[in-house]
Amino acid sequence: MAVYTDVPDDEMSAFVAGYGIGDLVSAKGIAEGVENSNYLIRTTTGPYILTLYEKRVNPDDLPFFIGLMNHLAAKGIPCPRPIEMPDGTALRELRGRPAAVTSFLDGMWTRRIRKEHCAQLGAALADFHSAGADFPMRRPNALGPDGWRPLFEMSEARADEVHPDMAPMIRDELDFLEANWPKDLPVGVCHADLFPDNVFFLQDELSGLIDFYFACTDYLAYDVSICMNAWCFERDRGFNVTKARALLANYTQHRHLNDAEFLALPILARGSALRFLLTRLYDWLNCPPGALVRPHDPMEYFDKLRFHQGVSGPGAYGLDGPDA
Amino acid sequence: MAVYTDVPDDEMSAFVAGYGIGDLVSAKGIAEGVENSNYLIRTTTGPYILTLYEKRVNPDDLPFFIGLMNHLAAKGIPCPRPIEMPDGTALRELRGRPAAVTSFLDGMWTRRIRKEHCAQLGAALADFHSAGADFPMRRPNALGPDGWRPLFEMSEARADEVHPDMAPMIRDELDFLEANWPKDLPVGVCHADLFPDNVFFLQDELSGLIDFYFACTDYLAYDVSICMNAWCFERDRGFNVTKARALLANYTQHRHLNDAEFLALPILARGSALRFLLTRLYDWLNCPPGALVRPHDPMEYFDKLRFHQGVSGPGAYGLDGPDA
Repeated sequence: MAVYTDVPDDEMSAFVAGYGIGDLVSAKGIAEGVENSNYLIRTTTGPYILTLYEKRVNPDDLPFFIGLMNHLAAKGIPCPRPIEMPDGTALRELRGRPAAVTSFLDGMWTRRIRKEHCAQLGAALADFHSAGADFPMRRPNALGPDGWRPLFEMSEARADEVHPDMAPMIRDELDFLEANWPKDLPVGVCHADLFPDNVFFLQDELSGLIDFYFACTDYLAYDVSICMNAWCFERDRGFNVTKARALLANYTQHRHLNDAEFLALPILARGSALRFLLTRLYDWLNCPPGALVRPHDPMEYFDKLRFHQGVSGPGAYGLDGPDA
Repeated sequence: MAVYTDVPDDEMSAFVAGYGIGDLVSAKGIAEGVENSNYLIRTTTGPYILTLYEKRVNPDDLPFFIGLMNHLAAKGIPCPRPIEMPDGTALRELRGRPAAVTSFLDGMWTRRIRKEHCAQLGAALADFHSAGADFPMRRPNALGPDGWRPLFEMSEARADEVHPDMAPMIRDELDFLEANWPKDLPVGVCHADLFPDNVFFLQDELSGLIDFYFACTDYLAYDVSICMNAWCFERDRGFNVTKARALLANYTQHRHLNDAEFLALPILARGSALRFLLTRLYDWLNCPPGALVRPHDPMEYFDKLRFHQGVSGPGAYGLDGPDA
C-alpha cells in the first residue's frame, strides 16, 4: 500500500506517449497493491493504470501475468487489459523496473460483504477458470503444498510469540496435508489471491477482477477454497454458510465441480487457510517496529484453519453435492 | 503520503450522492498530501478529489481554507474548487472526520525544474496574491516569526545529532531575525507552502496550484521568498540566479513589489529558510525508527539559510530592483 518508485513527470509523459493512447494529463500514485508501484494515470483518451514491478515480483513471471490478463480480457473476463505498443510489446521498462500500462476498471471493492457479492464472485471465478482453460502458459504455485514446510521453518522458532499452540498445530497440519493432499484434481489457471480488495463492484454488480500477481497453475477447486476462506467468514471469525452456499452454487452453475473436487473441498480449505496463515505469520514476526503498514493478524487464519479441521465433510459448506 | 482513513465503499457512495455530481464509479486512495487522506474519485460526471481532514489540521481553520479556494477559483486561479451541496454546504463529515470534495486539476508536478517553470510560478503566485486581496477572512501564520523560537526549543537539546553547528547557528539566527524582521510590508493571503509538488504543469503550462492547508495571512513578499527557496536551488544546493530572476521578474510583471518588499527579500528568505529548517529538524529528530516515509533532510535548509546569510543584498537574486 505505497508508491515505491517515484517517476519524474517528463519520463512518465515520454513513456506513455509510446502507446498511442493520447497525451498524459495526470498521474497519481495510488494505495493499491502491496507488491508494486501503481499509478492511476489519465491521458486525453481516458484513465489507465501504470504499474512498476518492484523486487517482490520475479521478472521471469511477468510474461505469464501479462499474457494471462491479455488472454482473459480477450474472452470478456472483466480484468485489466495490458495496453500494447504499436509493435505488440506490453512489457517495458521504466526507471530501471519492468513496467506495464493496463486498462482501468470502474468499481470499488466492498468492505461489507453480503451473500449477493459471494454469489457473483462464485460465477466470476468459474468464468475465470473456464476462460483460462486454453491459456497455454504454466506457472507453478510457489506457495503451494511444496512451499509450506520451508515457509513454516522460517517462522517456527518464534511462532509461540503469536500463540502457544501455533507451532505444534502447524506441524500436525503439515503432516496431515502432506499425507492426504488430493491427487489428480482438475488443474488450470488460478487467481490464487481473490480477496475482497481484488474484486470490484459497481452498484452491486461485479465489475472487475484485479491483481493477478499470484496467479499460477494449480487445482481449480483450491482457488475456490481460497475464496471461501476470504469471503465467507464474518469479522467475529464465524463461518457464514449462507455465503458459502451462494458462492459454491453460483460457481457450479458456471463450471462443473466433479465429485472428487467437491469431496476435497475441506482439505483444500485447510491447505489454503494454512498457506495464508504461514505468510501472515512470517510477515507478522518480521514486521519492522514502527512500520506504517501493520501486517494482517495471523490469528485470523489460525481460527479459519481450526474451523475446517472440525468440518465433517463438504456438506458443511452449504451444498449437498456438486450438482445440488 | 498515505491514506489514513479507510472509507467503506457504501458510505463513500452515499456521501458523494449528496452533491448532485453523479454516481460514484471509482475511488482510489492517493499518495498526495502528507496531512490528510485523499481519494481520487470518479463519478459519472468526471474526476474529483475527496479529502478527509486528519488530526494535524485544526478543524477551526477549515472554513478559511475552503472559503479561500472558493474565492480564488471564482477569480480564475487554477486551484481546487470546493463542491457544494444543494444547500451551499462544502464542509461535511465522513467517518467522523471533516471532509470535502473538490474539483480535479489536470497536470503533474515537475521533478526537473527549469527556468520556464519558475517564470510561470512567479506569475501564478502574483495572480494568487492579487486575487486574494479582497478575501475577507484572516488566519495568522502559526509558523511565522513568533512560532520559530518555541519550535526550536522542541529540538534544541538534540540538534547536534544533525550537525554540530545547528543549535548555535539557529540561536544566532533567531536573535538576528527577531531584532531585524521587517515591519509594515504589504500583507495578504499567502499560500506559504508552494513547493514544486503543489504546482501542476500540463505540457509545460502551469495548470494547477494545490494544498492550501498552510495558507495564512502574512507578508506577501515572504511567500515569494518561500518559493525562491523551494524552486531556485539545485540538487547540489547551489543557488540558480537565472531561475530566481525568472521567478521575480514574472512576479513583478503581475504584481508590483514595492521598494521595502524588494529590499527585505534577503531577510525574508532567511526567515522562510529557518521556518522549513525548524520543521524538518523536528520531524527528523522525531521520526519513528523503521517508518516508511523518511523525513526531508534538514541540512538542505541549513545550507539554504547559510546562503542567504551571505547575500549582500536583493541584487543577489538576479533583479536590480522591483521595476527592473
